[in-house]
Amino acid sequence: MGILKLTEEERKLLLSPLLTKSSWEMVENRDAVKKTFTFKNFNEAFGFMTRIALRADKVDHHPEWFNVYNRVEITLATHECQGLSQRDLDLAKFIDNVYNTSTK
Amino acid sequence: MGILKLTEEERKLLLSPLLTKSSWEMVENRDAVKKTFTFKNFNEAFGFMTRIALRADKVDHHPEWFNVYNRVEITLATHECQGLSQRDLDLAKFIDNVYNTSTK
Repeated sequence: MGILKLTEEERKLLLSPLLTKSSWEMVENRDAVKKTFTFKNFNEAFGFMTRIALRADKVDHHPEWFNVYNRVEITLATHECQGLSQRDLDLAKFIDNVYNTSTK
Repeated sequence: MGILKLTEEERKLLLSPLLTKSSWEMVENRDAVKKTFTFKNFNEAFGFMTRIALRADKVDHHPEWFNVYNRVEITLATHECQGLSQRDLDLAKFIDNVYNTSTK
């Protein structure tokens, strides 16, 4: 069994809090979520990216991301199911946690 | 004295070879260059980004870049002069060198 898209119920239960409480947004015309993170400088921004990269490589689930100086824009979706899966929710949570602990 | 845009002569002498021999392209409607690099996997791509990040932080000149899995798209321009400066040429050369040595 491959990776499955989130069901309607999973979206209500698990995706909604991400959108209402953690500032992730749905991407237009695509079953994907995005969020922009801002840091003091490039060093902080790339440190954040590095922590995510290590996790991404370990769990074999990778973000689409853009960085310039202190800004990191991240989009999450699952290639295999062409939309959002549990893997994206897990990675989003991990990313929020890294952000919250690294900018204190 | 701030960072200066490349002169016409510098563009002929120094920018042209980058465009004709190293596959960098001018960005449309912007005085900036871009190039896409492809790797075997995410680990290789992020290793490449990390080597560039260390240099960028050291010389205080940063790329605009997008990554998804094994692909890295890099745009170079100099914020301070709103266009291409010697710093972009230096960073482009460094990036090409990292790519050439890391994919052998």
